[in-house]
Amino acid sequence: MYELVIANGLVITPGGVIVADLAINGEEIVAIGFGLNGERVIDAAGCYVIPGGVDPHVHLQMALAGMISTDTFTTGAIAAACGGTTTIIDFADPQPEQPMLDALSARRSEADGQVAIDYALHMTVPTWHGADAGRLHEIPAVIAAGCPTFKLYQAYNRMELDDVALYRVMCAVGDAGGRVVLHSETGPLLEVLRAEAVAAGHTAAIWHERTRPARLEATAIHRAAEIAYLAGCPLYIFHVGCAEAVAEIVAARLRGVDIVGEGCPQYLLFTAEKHLKSADGNLYICAPPLRSHEDQDVVWAALADDDLQVVSTDHCPWTRAEKLGASSFTSVPGGIPSIEARLSLIHHFGVVEERMDLSRWVEICCTNPARLMGLDRKGALLPGYDADVVIFDPEREKTITVDALHEAADWTPYAGISVAGWPRAVLLRGQLIVEDEHYVGQPGQGYFVAREV
Amino acid sequence: MYELVIANGLVITPGGVIVADLAINGEEIVAIGFGLNGERVIDAAGCYVIPGGVDPHVHLQMALAGMISTDTFTTGAIAAACGGTTTIIDFADPQPEQPMLDALSARRSEADGQVAIDYALHMTVPTWHGADAGRLHEIPAVIAAGCPTFKLYQAYNRMELDDVALYRVMCAVGDAGGRVVLHSETGPLLEVLRAEAVAAGHTAAIWHERTRPARLEATAIHRAAEIAYLAGCPLYIFHVGCAEAVAEIVAARLRGVDIVGEGCPQYLLFTAEKHLKSADGNLYICAPPLRSHEDQDVVWAALADDDLQVVSTDHCPWTRAEKLGASSFTSVPGGIPSIEARLSLIHHFGVVEERMDLSRWVEICCTNPARLMGLDRKGALLPGYDADVVIFDPEREKTITVDALHEAADWTPYAGISVAGWPRAVLLRGQLIVEDEHYVGQPGQGYFVAREV
Amino acid sequence: MYELVIANGLVITPGGVIVADLAINGEEIVAIGFGLNGERVIDAAGCYVIPGGVDPHVHLQMALAGMISTDTFTTGAIAAACGGTTTIIDFADPQPEQPMLDALSARRSEADGQVAIDYALHMTVPTWHGADAGRLHEIPAVIAAGCPTFKLYQAYNRMELDDVALYRVMCAVGDAGGRVVLHSETGPLLEVLRAEAVAAGHTAAIWHERTRPARLEATAIHRAAEIAYLAGCPLYIFHVGCAEAVAEIVAARLRGVDIVGEGCPQYLLFTAEKHLKSADGNLYICAPPLRSHEDQDVVWAALADDDLQVVSTDHCPWTRAEKLGASSFTSVPGGIPSIEARLSLIHHFGVVEERMDLSRWVEICCTNPARLMGLDRKGALLPGYDADVVIFDPEREKTITVDALHEAADWTPYAGISVAGWPRAVLLRGQLIVEDEHYVGQPGQGYFVAREV
Amino acid sequence: MYELVIANGLVITPGGVIVADLAINGEEIVAIGFGLNGERVIDAAGCYVIPGGVDPHVHLQMALAGMISTDTFTTGAIAAACGGTTTIIDFADPQPEQPMLDALSARRSEADGQVAIDYALHMTVPTWHGADAGRLHEIPAVIAAGCPTFKLYQAYNRMELDDVALYRVMCAVGDAGGRVVLHSETGPLLEVLRAEAVAAGHTAAIWHERTRPARLEATAIHRAAEIAYLAGCPLYIFHVGCAEAVAEIVAARLRGVDIVGEGCPQYLLFTAEKHLKSADGNLYICAPPLRSHEDQDVVWAALADDDLQVVSTDHCPWTRAEKLGASSFTSVPGGIPSIEARLSLIHHFGVVEERMDLSRWVEICCTNPARLMGLDRKGALLPGYDADVVIFDPEREKTITVDALHEAADWTPYAGISVAGWPRAVLLRGQLIVEDEHYVGQPGQGYFVAREV
Repeated sequence: MYELVIANGLVITPGGVIVADLAINGEEIVAIGFGLNGERVIDAAGCYVIPGGVDPHVHLQMALAGMISTDTFTTGAIAAACGGTTTIIDFADPQPEQPMLDALSARRSEADGQVAIDYALHMTVPTWHGADAGRLHEIPAVIAAGCPTFKLYQAYNRMELDDVALYRVMCAVGDAGGRVVLHSETGPLLEVLRAEAVAAGHTAAIWHERTRPARLEATAIHRAAEIAYLAGCPLYIFHVGCAEAVAEIVAARLRGVDIVGEGCPQYLLFTAEKHLKSADGNLYICAPPLRSHEDQDVVWAALADDDLQVVSTDHCPWTRAEKLGASSFTSVPGGIPSIEARLSLIHHFGVVEERMDLSRWVEICCTNPARLMGLDRKGALLPGYDADVVIFDPEREKTITVDALHEAADWTPYAGISVAGWPRAVLLRGQLIVEDEHYVGQPGQGYFVAREV
Repeated sequence: MYELVIANGLVITPGGVIVADLAINGEEIVAIGFGLNGERVIDAAGCYVIPGGVDPHVHLQMALAGMISTDTFTTGAIAAACGGTTTIIDFADPQPEQPMLDALSARRSEADGQVAIDYALHMTVPTWHGADAGRLHEIPAVIAAGCPTFKLYQAYNRMELDDVALYRVMCAVGDAGGRVVLHSETGPLLEVLRAEAVAAGHTAAIWHERTRPARLEATAIHRAAEIAYLAGCPLYIFHVGCAEAVAEIVAARLRGVDIVGEGCPQYLLFTAEKHLKSADGNLYICAPPLRSHEDQDVVWAALADDDLQVVSTDHCPWTRAEKLGASSFTSVPGGIPSIEARLSLIHHFGVVEERMDLSRWVEICCTNPARLMGLDRKGALLPGYDADVVIFDPEREKTITVDALHEAADWTPYAGISVAGWPRAVLLRGQLIVEDEHYVGQPGQGYFVAREV
Repeated sequence: MYELVIANGLVITPGGVIVADLAINGEEIVAIGFGLNGERVIDAAGCYVIPGGVDPHVHLQMALAGMISTDTFTTGAIAAACGGTTTIIDFADPQPEQPMLDALSARRSEADGQVAIDYALHMTVPTWHGADAGRLHEIPAVIAAGCPTFKLYQAYNRMELDDVALYRVMCAVGDAGGRVVLHSETGPLLEVLRAEAVAAGHTAAIWHERTRPARLEATAIHRAAEIAYLAGCPLYIFHVGCAEAVAEIVAARLRGVDIVGEGCPQYLLFTAEKHLKSADGNLYICAPPLRSHEDQDVVWAALADDDLQVVSTDHCPWTRAEKLGASSFTSVPGGIPSIEARLSLIHHFGVVEERMDLSRWVEICCTNPARLMGLDRKGALLPGYDADVVIFDPEREKTITVDALHEAADWTPYAGISVAGWPRAVLLRGQLIVEDEHYVGQPGQGYFVAREV
Repeated sequence: MYELVIANGLVITPGGVIVADLAINGEEIVAIGFGLNGERVIDAAGCYVIPGGVDPHVHLQMALAGMISTDTFTTGAIAAACGGTTTIIDFADPQPEQPMLDALSARRSEADGQVAIDYALHMTVPTWHGADAGRLHEIPAVIAAGCPTFKLYQAYNRMELDDVALYRVMCAVGDAGGRVVLHSETGPLLEVLRAEAVAAGHTAAIWHERTRPARLEATAIHRAAEIAYLAGCPLYIFHVGCAEAVAEIVAARLRGVDIVGEGCPQYLLFTAEKHLKSADGNLYICAPPLRSHEDQDVVWAALADDDLQVVSTDHCPWTRAEKLGASSFTSVPGGIPSIEARLSLIHHFGVVEERMDLSRWVEICCTNPARLMGLDRKGALLPGYDADVVIFDPEREKTITVDALHEAADWTPYAGISVAGWPRAVLLRGQLIVEDEHYVGQPGQGYFVAREV
């Protein structure tokens, strides 16, 4: 007799899709099988039973230019939970002079006790740390503290690392057994193009896209890939949204580089035309920018064909006022809220619209991010793994509105989009935390998860 | 209380690797979990517990030029079983004027009651059927009979299909929901090159390789891929052994073609230098031919990186006398025996030598061939799946000799190769059929498996 | 004192552009220099002085399905001359059982005494000759007779050669020191697609394009390139009009294949949208079909960057009645008249619109076709070369109309197009044959030119 | 009656190869033709008559780390002349705070009156100028002063420009109508690799090659190409010696970048094995380093096929003592002497060994560098062009020794190499300056040549 059994659902695993029961004791899955008996039973007949979603790229209560991204760890995690995501990876961003472990502790102290789901942290290596080889000796300790993935930027002013810094950090990360996750754009040039545009009086949202050409994204990937090869460091490319970037990732892999990449829903669903709208073109500003329909086709195919491996959100919400108040595209806080709808959007536009099958959906939203990020107990429905489970009802139709979401921002780019399929219930380590689109857990239930890649 | 529990093994799944128990009732896996109780228990501590291997490309008791390939369904299947393979896919080869369903029945009547493991059949579409559109109406019935994969040849004289026949068959197979599996070489030209070589007095084994240039393999793939695209038919390329072929497969995928491919152990371990040995250069003759070390590196990387998806054997054994008795390379029966050592060779040279991880090994040897070939109850350890299980001892060291194998041929190309890891026990649908390298089952236990792709 | 001096023109050579005089004695250029004195002097001040155009791909009075292409050797050559072309290469097409030398003689007897400009002939190797290796021994004699280029078809029913025939012919041509010129489409499949379209009731002109997909053009080139590599035969691809074909030509070259290619004005100026016009969509039917604007950009760039080397016309005119009278696209005689406007079109849309410089214009319209085709005394303004000279007035504006051209067809696709630049005078081997757009020569002045490549 | 006629030679032009006379009045070619009469006549029967070689990349009396490269303008130019080169392009290298025009004047004052042949100068834009946008306003004036090509470095410490500087300089150069010539390696990383090697005690010559991986050359080209595209600036890549670099140049061109490149004899003839020689491995140190035989094949093919356009020398000689005296590869002055043998080496290993034809040899050694670098009166034998002429005897056999060359260095990498073909006589603007391998001119005859691209 198990404590809890999720019975009769269609259990989706990378190896196959089966109708079976899932047994949970305490926080753990302890069995998958037939006719399992539980003290409590949730009947999942007609629903998909999938691992809790893993979103390896979110920015909650992130400080930026005197503002804080709209979702706190509390609101953001609840929204994630309601959408079927039970683990997120956010970032620890060291200040100048701040040791990385201190930054890790500081960030954990913001999150611990607040988050509704499990979370982990990437360690950002900003300019002041990356360029200063003296800090790199901290990397093994950071990995030992459960944070084996290091976020580097090839763009964004003070965050950005030049080639030598990239190489030094990648050597240190590679030697210590970590992985680099990368924002890959040719930052210094983007700054010039942006300044040129502003100097010419071009401040409208569309200039965000025009000053971040896909070529400068692709060539940054080319360069980072070669450096990673020399450094012996695995590389994970964030938010791939254009054909040129996909082409460079594949080419680098064929040249022997250990490289993978992720897409995000906003790039799959929207194009740069969004920026042309005078009223709210600024809302959609994120970096890299939205691209074209042709780019979308390439990214969808790459996700289906394992040329890209993950869908994350890069969730980074701001209020309408914050986004629209800027007088120029250069001062719009970048980022789009996506944390809640990710699973359903990829289900609908990926599976229902026949761009991929059910197993691939779970792989890119749950299993692959867990495995690539070293979340050893997440991302699959296996005995011994955390009982993070989503009972996903493929028949539940939903038209997205800002009110229907639990995100804190007062807008969503997905408003008006109708999808088939939404979570009916979500469990975090055996505890029911979402039921019929209502959060029924306790913030603080979520733990920091130490990882090893 | 389950009928049988395999306890404490390291269970390897595509989603992760866990120490757990596997419960079996009758022929089926019914649970994976902790502390499962069985009437009978096999302790697998220290061993890997993996799905039975799936070898989607074998030729048992195949008629060729008045000879029969050395392994019967009985001996070949026992050898496969001893190596950890529990499902093979062989071929039904229609004779001229023979309806495909008759060929299927005829081939089944040769195998049924003889095979030690489960088997399925690809339907060969030879020239006389492919070129004759009148036969293509049989394809839906063949699929309905459980045979949804159609073997086409772009080479081999009377077997080979020209572009129009390829297109017509691919349209018919694609429309009916099947998949084409393809021997891709530019056959008509190979025949010319072979004739030229022989006319010039070049009959030694090395001319087998010299008259089958990689370019003519790659361009055949290019052509077949474009035809498959137009026909709307999924394509699976057999026995990929050269860099040029890998490049064309990847390029075709990026052009939107639904294309996957397999490697084989012989291409991964041997090079064309084998053919230069005057004494037994003929032994290694197989088509496509063995290539270079550089090619091997590319194929290994492609298997690890999901640019190729499967390792099969193309097992096609002949006796030393049959192979060495030929006066010219053109009359050597083509093929190499590999059916027994596949799992262990890929474990040793792939996993132990760190070209891939454990999960990838199982994916390419078990899960992927099962999924791509429509073996819905095979290739993964999931409740409801057939209890085809290998208890694989990674510590078992073995130096391969012809005597130590169960294959019928009086030679093996792998003689003298030492590997770490060999199956300790093998179950077919819940029945122990191999124990400590001895076959303990009953030939005839194996069933024909109807498939759906 | 030279017999004739063309004075003060801007002489355009591959090495540079100079203001100089050109001296001619008899049929030959004998000097280029300053202050050259002539018994007769033509003042070319303000004009370009360029070599007579070389159009290596025309079809005059070509028999097809009971019709004859509209321009005779007489009218076609006069039109060519008026447009600044002084050498054309047409085709000798052997009938079944007809020796190639007989076909050459027969075709020469149609042209000799009729043509206004010099001409040469490619030898077509149709199915009945290519497939019959017994005919290939004629190739050295054909080359010795001044016809070193052999036209092969990968399409067009009875003309088309399969891979073995391609290989055999290419071996024979390569061994004998010739070059293959190739119509590269995957013919057998096109026939199937055409038949399918017609069977579905699709007979409109646009189906011409829809049944000749660019992929089947590109894969034919891939295959032919690999065969040419194996055969050791130089390869020249006719009428390249799509990006896919350019990509395969470049890729083949980088794989070591001796391969070059040509574009044609119709592909550079028109797109498949022409076929959508219900009234006269059939007019534009030519093979390969017209493509897209994106394809045009790629072909223009390839011509400018030496990824393609030549612009020919594939001039093959039919009357409106012949083109529009067909009840289905499959019975429209293929081809477009372009022979007269080629030089001016490429000057205007290439040079004036800044896609290439003056030297490149002359290279692709004159020098390169002469060198690649073995017209050793043509294509450049050099002492010892034939005094084929065009005095091209870059200021002469012309709006093309059917009446303003000398072509025999009662329509031109270029009607209404205005260009800057048209020949003011044309000399053939020292004789003035065109003056102010009037033909002032004598048909029959043109000779058959024996070539050596 | 012309002042001078070079009679009966085989005149090699891009348009064709003819036996003709060349007439010269004063400094200029005034006619090419037959039977030209001269007051003086040089009989060139049996010889090739070609334009004087143009070497667009040399470093004479270049200051480096307290040393001066071995050849002065006097000795280097005499050596060039004796080898058939009549124009060289060297560099003006501004010091910090020095205006570019001052640097140009200063460099001209070193050369004027010293050089035996004509010369021009590239303007180096070092870090202190490139990074300082305040200097870029000088660029139009530099171009107006006859120096339209700007040498940028992506490597070499203080010379190297980061991406922003590259972009700013390329914008300025592109806007002003100039061209960038580029040393493309990823400099900052090379410095790290070099420091790592030295720190590990690796000071031998082979580490020069090991610390300059081809990947870091190729990715620098990728990046520079994209920046040039954005900046609208034509790009010319110096000293291409590896397959990876060729591939990136071709790929960039196909992406629409205006990019060309040059090879050098040392990369075509030597491999990195030279560095393994303990005695004199340092001699061969140049940057980028020597590569492999496979790389050589690719570069030769690229030169023949117009994927590379020029052969220069990057002549930069040092004495044996200077090269061998260094205790570490990092302190060896980089560069190899090649200025004299270039034409003959490419003739022998290119034309005689059948890697290209005579016309292509002249194109890549004379015509293309002249046209790409804006030497409007150089590089071709045309009326109005400077009478820079080489009478090249293809039968003259020569085994290269250091004594047989006129270069100042006490060694040559080509010692012991035998070639067929060497200049018999060389004219500079109509004056005989080399006769039978002896310099018979007056240093100072050579002029600075103002260029326009």
